[in-house]
Amino acid sequence: MDATTLELIILPAGILAVLFALYLARDVLRRDAGTQAMQDVAATILEGAVAFIRRQYTTIAILALFGAVILTAVISLVDTQAVAETDIYGLDLGIRTGIAFLVGAACSMASGVIGMYIAVKANVRTASAAQRSLVEAVQVAMRGGAVSGFLVVALSLLGVYGMFVAMGGLEHPAQAPFLIVGFGFGASFVALFAQLGGGIYTKAADVGADLVGKVEAGIPEDDPRNAAVIADLVGDNVGDCAGRGADLFESTAAENIGAMILGVAVYGIALRLGWPNPQAWIFFPLVVRSFGLLATMISMFTIRGREDADPMGMLNRGYWVTTALSAMALAFVTYVMMSGTNGQTGANGIPIWVYFFGAGLVGLATSIVFVYITQYYTSGAWRPVKEIAEASKTGPATNIISGVAVGFETTAVTAIAIVIALFASFWLGEQAGLVNIAGSNVGGVFGTAVATMGMLMTTAYILAMDTFGPITDNAGGIAEFSRAESKARDITDRLDAVGNTTKALTKGYAIASASLAAFLLFSAYIDRVNLILLRQGRDLMESVNLASINVFLAAFIASMVVYFFSSLAIRAVGTAASAIIVEVRRQFREMPGIMDYTQKPDYARVVDITTRAALREMILPGLVAVFAPVVVGLLLGYEAVAGFLMVGTISGVLLATVLNNSGGAWDNAKKYIESGNLRDAAGNVLGKKSEPHAAAVVGDTVGDPFKDTAGPSLHVLVKLFATITLVLAPLFVR
Amino acid sequence: MDATTLELIILPAGILAVLFALYLARDVLRRDAGTQAMQDVAATILEGAVAFIRRQYTTIAILALFGAVILTAVISLVDTQAVAETDIYGLDLGIRTGIAFLVGAACSMASGVIGMYIAVKANVRTASAAQRSLVEAVQVAMRGGAVSGFLVVALSLLGVYGMFVAMGGLEHPAQAPFLIVGFGFGASFVALFAQLGGGIYTKAADVGADLVGKVEAGIPEDDPRNAAVIADLVGDNVGDCAGRGADLFESTAAENIGAMILGVAVYGIALRLGWPNPQAWIFFPLVVRSFGLLATMISMFTIRGREDADPMGMLNRGYWVTTALSAMALAFVTYVMMSGTNGQTGANGIPIWVYFFGAGLVGLATSIVFVYITQYYTSGAWRPVKEIAEASKTGPATNIISGVAVGFETTAVTAIAIVIALFASFWLGEQAGLVNIAGSNVGGVFGTAVATMGMLMTTAYILAMDTFGPITDNAGGIAEFSRAESKARDITDRLDAVGNTTKALTKGYAIASASLAAFLLFSAYIDRVNLILLRQGRDLMESVNLASINVFLAAFIASMVVYFFSSLAIRAVGTAASAIIVEVRRQFREMPGIMDYTQKPDYARVVDITTRAALREMILPGLVAVFAPVVVGLLLGYEAVAGFLMVGTISGVLLATVLNNSGGAWDNAKKYIESGNLRDAAGNVLGKKSEPHAAAVVGDTVGDPFKDTAGPSLHVLVKLFATITLVLAPLFVR
Repeated sequence: MDATTLELIILPAGILAVLFALYLARDVLRRDAGTQAMQDVAATILEGAVAFIRRQYTTIAILALFGAVILTAVISLVDTQAVAETDIYGLDLGIRTGIAFLVGAACSMASGVIGMYIAVKANVRTASAAQRSLVEAVQVAMRGGAVSGFLVVALSLLGVYGMFVAMGGLEHPAQAPFLIVGFGFGASFVALFAQLGGGIYTKAADVGADLVGKVEAGIPEDDPRNAAVIADLVGDNVGDCAGRGADLFESTAAENIGAMILGVAVYGIALRLGWPNPQAWIFFPLVVRSFGLLATMISMFTIRGREDADPMGMLNRGYWVTTALSAMALAFVTYVMMSGTNGQTGANGIPIWVYFFGAGLVGLATSIVFVYITQYYTSGAWRPVKEIAEASKTGPATNIISGVAVGFETTAVTAIAIVIALFASFWLGEQAGLVNIAGSNVGGVFGTAVATMGMLMTTAYILAMDTFGPITDNAGGIAEFSRAESKARDITDRLDAVGNTTKALTKGYAIASASLAAFLLFSAYIDRVNLILLRQGRDLMESVNLASINVFLAAFIASMVVYFFSSLAIRAVGTAASAIIVEVRRQFREMPGIMDYTQKPDYARVVDITTRAALREMILPGLVAVFAPVVVGLLLGYEAVAGFLMVGTISGVLLATVLNNSGGAWDNAKKYIESGNLRDAAGNVLGKKSEPHAAAVVGDTVGDPFKDTAGPSLHVLVKLFATITLVLAPLFVR
Repeated sequence: MDATTLELIILPAGILAVLFALYLARDVLRRDAGTQAMQDVAATILEGAVAFIRRQYTTIAILALFGAVILTAVISLVDTQAVAETDIYGLDLGIRTGIAFLVGAACSMASGVIGMYIAVKANVRTASAAQRSLVEAVQVAMRGGAVSGFLVVALSLLGVYGMFVAMGGLEHPAQAPFLIVGFGFGASFVALFAQLGGGIYTKAADVGADLVGKVEAGIPEDDPRNAAVIADLVGDNVGDCAGRGADLFESTAAENIGAMILGVAVYGIALRLGWPNPQAWIFFPLVVRSFGLLATMISMFTIRGREDADPMGMLNRGYWVTTALSAMALAFVTYVMMSGTNGQTGANGIPIWVYFFGAGLVGLATSIVFVYITQYYTSGAWRPVKEIAEASKTGPATNIISGVAVGFETTAVTAIAIVIALFASFWLGEQAGLVNIAGSNVGGVFGTAVATMGMLMTTAYILAMDTFGPITDNAGGIAEFSRAESKARDITDRLDAVGNTTKALTKGYAIASASLAAFLLFSAYIDRVNLILLRQGRDLMESVNLASINVFLAAFIASMVVYFFSSLAIRAVGTAASAIIVEVRRQFREMPGIMDYTQKPDYARVVDITTRAALREMILPGLVAVFAPVVVGLLLGYEAVAGFLMVGTISGVLLATVLNNSGGAWDNAKKYIESGNLRDAAGNVLGKKSEPHAAAVVGDTVGDPFKDTAGPSLHVLVKLFATITLVLAPLFVR
């Protein structure tokens, strides 16, 4: 079998994954939908979620249309024949870029909507299954999550491949990757607003519901008397499902395109040296991801266990199976696609493919390392969460101080893991000895690209686990809301705790992939800028010189934008939550029958208020994110943009780490206390309703916008920086 | 008058400033020391402060001796004849560097100790004066603060000049600046541990005293029944006085030396072009600072006013006088020292000195801008603090979320101001047209150096205002503790509020100077590395290439170290505060007479516990700060170190901004509520003891370690990065 044969797998693998998602969706949908009470609340949630998504995606679609028009105009005007790196330029290129942008945006929106729709359907079926069996509940929730996982990854694969073919990639493989960068930008653009809007919605509803319900009225979480409770349940779906789906859609798309651009450099070497299948280096990212999808499909059937098994154990088994199969597939793909080198070897006579196989393994290993780092810092079994719980004994202030200290601390091991992974994959790539005509070793950067692709092989599984979180969370809410029997509550509680862990893991995975991909994406930008400079006969950009004032100032601004964007996102949650609090208070006051269940609160009004507030609040941070790199590029030039991108990525990754992990740790410190693990000096349990618990609730609330709004939005932000600069490179090179 | 004449001012100005400090000290000391009760508590505070400083400085001295020995050994071994940029190398250079390090360390310690001693003496005299007159109290507090201000700046000026002369600067001006970099490193080294130890001490005592006293026992702040109250009062002196003094000592020293190194490049141009006084470009920083000292001395006599005047107004008047005199002096100094250019002009035929005068004005203006930015974000009159106070209505969680959002937001205007200042001073410098033999325009970087020197002209005044803060804070504590009459309390309360503002301003000033100096210090590092490379006949470092993997990884690590260091500093406060809480609780339990004033708490024991905890906790973050750049340099090389330095500075400056300003805003949101400015929907005042006030107290406590431990320590950290890399450059160039 040779590389050209292997390339044929992409389309069937993508289609198979879509069919598999449909099969899973059908499997979920034909399951028992629970009691009438459950179905009623599920219908209300679906209604609220659809209402929000419809309005949100209408807004995003309008923004995207504007974006596409502006993009088309800008590219048509600046990417003239004199500038263009390919023989497609001007209006032709502008229209193609605009279309790619819209297709990327549409694919992202489609995968978000469908995934969320199935997740909402899976919620109530999980609640229903929990009345009967833990294993069945796990399966329903995981399959519901997998619909999202497979759709997102398959649509991103098919979308990138489809655009590549449409732009003539089969005939001119070295040209097409540059023509489809608009696809990645479209995906990032949608992801940013989806994550921001969804993140603001979910946390505003959560914080609002908690503050009026639990704190002021003294009623439990998810109590039907709380007018914000439906909005809260809706929020889990629109924030966690749709938002994270869009996040990983754009990650896979942008990183795939970036890796193909780097593949072009190796293609040039392979062509010059007369290697049999030079295009294999460009197709590699698509092929390896196809195999990742196949590996994940197989592993879905391994999620089973006894009734008394640990649900996390079941999910972990599936993850390990996915990883093991991916490693084997990686060996196969690198061997087939990279061994046609006419006998040329890397350092020490070792075949070139072996080095890149090693780099891919580094990527797979990095995702495992991040799974454990996240567990250490955010699960109750270890020192950090215990420390925060202990600090709660002296009140909310020490709880917060301790959580911030833990959040800051997590950057250390995160950064070290990333530095080692980047260094190792770069080093392995360099050993492959791929030297271009200018004498530079392009293998190092390509090594980091292969590591990223290795890591992305398991994305569908990770995303399925992630969506498992909000599904079980909602299932618990539905069980509570519909006053289901206690067995169902017990099972959904256990699954909810597991879901918290899987949600945290996904954020670690998203951070790790953003960091691994960072180098790849800068390099793609630099490659593109240099192709333009070459065409213009100008000196190439040989370095991104931090000691030049423009680059330094751009770096300063980038680091600031990361904070400013987070400030806007966090404040947006506060503003939207205030609107909810006012409304719920009003309902308690004006509808006195609510408290004794004789009156039904007006859930729809709170849903509506939350929707409007979230949509209003997502605009400003979104525009800051889009315009900041453009303004820097126009004022300070293309080299400064590279500095902006690099330092913005570093700052964004680290601040997201701080926000995600402190938030997760606060959440679990509260759960740790609720589970009765905290004791005073005399050995008495300090559990629910104790002073330390009240302090821990404060920490948990502070962590909400950190970990579910600002943190995840930062993942998207750093990748948006990468795609927007890649697309607009011709604007900055003037 | 020509440049050589003007250079003669340095020594007299420095000595005059020392004499002026002694005069002020004598003036403060001969004032009325208050009632016997006041004198008793002041004596206790002095005892605690001296005990801490003695032990802290003993520890620091031991660390510094170790540091000097290691430094001498390293420089002796690596800075061999083959490497050295001057004709002093090997053991000779090692010993000189070690001595410079120790002299820098000793000067820093001396100015810290003397300044703190006078401040403690001024506390009680301010309290006493407050019994009679507001104006007198302001004068005593400001003069007490000015002792620190003048000593710190004068010792740094005399120290740098003395080392410069001792290293043969009068004969070989182009060589000496490189030989005295050890002085700056010694000063930074002491500053780091002084600020860390003092910052941990002061906030651990503050948080500990508040949590047991105000929260648990329900007794007011500074109540004599609280065993931690003396430690709290001691903390203000050791943290705010000694710590900030050491911080600004090393800022002025390091930035002065860096500016002289950049002056060497201009010296080369002046020498080649046969300008009359080439050495003037190297002496310029020393001369301009001398004039800054003279301007500040004059302005000290303008601090007066009517009894009913606003004390902040009196201090502001003095500041404006200092700034105006400094601007005039700047015009004079740049004219005399930079107009001997044989008629060569800058762009548009404008004399060279005019451009640098402009750059210096940019520096003076930047400090004014920062004064207003800090006031906007941390004073109760504006939107940010009001927003936090409003958010307190829904509890501590929303108070914290709002404060974090404000803290993040402050980076925006801070970064924009810094970017504009750097850009403007760089641009002005470039217009001067100072082109070296290699064809590069060195004026840009020198422009940022002149801006930094312009800004530093007012340091003595700023530091006097800063020390005014803890003096009035302590005066209030002494008045409360000794149950002084209410007029004295009223006056000290008013002064304390002003002191909070001046303390916040100084942090803004320190941030701004660190940022303005950043470019100067990188450039000094690059100059030094290139001199070494030149000597070795190797290619010069022409850029700090962020796109090279080592530089990128170093940048990543730098940004992480900033977070990790802050985590350690914040956690240290928590750990030390816990020890205090345990002890105070024990005293309340075992000495029941404390509550009804029949038993005196054991203050000394708490002081001792705090001392030991603070000293223990300062070591780890200190070592992380010192070793991180060294390890990066050894593993990743000299170019990576430059990336580490630059991105570390950006990250450190921005995180310090977040921590300082959120802390200040939380503090003043609490004060805003206490002053009765917050009202509920019905218009009722929500003041002290209300729910929102309790929420605001949580925010204030969270902000304590942010703004007084981690934030100020970060200022020192970024400058330590600069001095350590400058000193150890020969170690990294191998």
